[in-house]
Amino acid sequence: MQRGIVRLVLVGIEGEINLGFIARLAANFKVDEFYLVAPRASPDSQEARRFAANGSYMLDKAIVVENLDEALRGVDIAACTSAKIGQRSDVIRHAVSAREFAEEIAPRYTRIGIVFGRESVGLTRDELTKCNLLVHIPANPEYPVLNLSHAVGIVLYELWQSLHVVELHEKAPEKQLSYIYEKLEPLIDLVVDKERSQHVKAAIKHILWKSKITSGEASALYYFAKKLRRLVEECVKRC
Amino acid sequence: MQRGIVRLVLVGIEGEINLGFIARLAANFKVDEFYLVAPRASPDSQEARRFAANGSYMLDKAIVVENLDEALRGVDIAACTSAKIGQRSDVIRHAVSAREFAEEIAPRYTRIGIVFGRESVGLTRDELTKCNLLVHIPANPEYPVLNLSHAVGIVLYELWQSLHVVELHEKAPEKQLSYIYEKLEPLIDLVVDKERSQHVKAAIKHILWKSKITSGEASALYYFAKKLRRLVEECVKRC
Repeated sequence: MQRGIVRLVLVGIEGEINLGFIARLAANFKVDEFYLVAPRASPDSQEARRFAANGSYMLDKAIVVENLDEALRGVDIAACTSAKIGQRSDVIRHAVSAREFAEEIAPRYTRIGIVFGRESVGLTRDELTKCNLLVHIPANPEYPVLNLSHAVGIVLYELWQSLHVVELHEKAPEKQLSYIYEKLEPLIDLVVDKERSQHVKAAIKHILWKSKITSGEASALYYFAKKLRRLVEECVKRC
Repeated sequence: MQRGIVRLVLVGIEGEINLGFIARLAANFKVDEFYLVAPRASPDSQEARRFAANGSYMLDKAIVVENLDEALRGVDIAACTSAKIGQRSDVIRHAVSAREFAEEIAPRYTRIGIVFGRESVGLTRDELTKCNLLVHIPANPEYPVLNLSHAVGIVLYELWQSLHVVELHEKAPEKQLSYIYEKLEPLIDLVVDKERSQHVKAAIKHILWKSKITSGEASALYYFAKKLRRLVEECVKRC
């Protein structure tokens, strides 16, 4: 499936620290297009630059427009966001969770727009109606309102996870696990009586095969098993 | 399954804005225990209080200790975090993703410790070895280093999602979908010729049943269908 293009839209952003932090997040999660609708904080301010750190190039790339319609031109799906969701009858504020949006909905579209409102009052109801759906981050019902930049971070993170294959380390191939086990098996036979050895062997195999061991972890374990076996064999010979 | 207790541990936090933001996030995602190991930023500073907003009670609750060992006393699993993961042989820096940690590992433990390092240099290798595993947030390989508070937000969000049942709105029961369809069916028969009507009926049923409609959305749709049918029936009578 084609990886979607993500357009981040901030409506009326007020704080320069937030703007800077969001530019950094846009770089951390490789946002393709960055739109600012009538921003009150300046992308050229020192504060914004400072908090953007190595993401300050996103502030240069930002496209400033006057209203939300302009910012949504050309997207296949526009998702507004809100910390406030509605009661049963307030359908304009019926939302999907950020997870559901990122995992189930966004991958079906090529140009994905995600819209965040002002720190003080969020998005107006009129702005909400311009989106195809509403996205909400579930949190503590006693205090669900995240700072704007943290909400942006979570949604961009969710989209990144969903649009990229995440594998941090090469997993140990079956062969490597077998090698480790083969080094250990004679040691088990040596020190555990026959009756219990079946259990010890099963335990070790279960642990090796279910632990999602990385190849590097497997190498370290194999090295230990090899050294241990050598020591034990020498010991036994000498006795 | 018992919902785990989450202990958030910050080692040597340097920035008061970050400390404030993290306290707010700890409130947003209802962290149970908040430990500060040798903080350089003061939880009593005005800046920290300001950025903590309604989460500033977490700053009062924070337990200040001198070293990581003290902060990890009593947890069942201690997960360190790092923006930097290791090559094949650097096993100390082999990590699981935040998603894998939250979804697959954390739910198996009752007292879950999650440890974040300094803004400048993260956690030392010595500190990393005190944890049971390493957690990493996948991001743009060209600039994967998130601001500390945003990294904290994402991990706490992941834990919240995994330890709580998230359902934002009541889903429409099957009956409600049937009611909507029953209102629409005579309209289809009225305006579409028999040959095509099977297709239109199938399309509408498919859309209704696969769209995860909320009960409120279903009510709004039913209201529309009812009004539309009434108008059409009156129209037809008059002709």
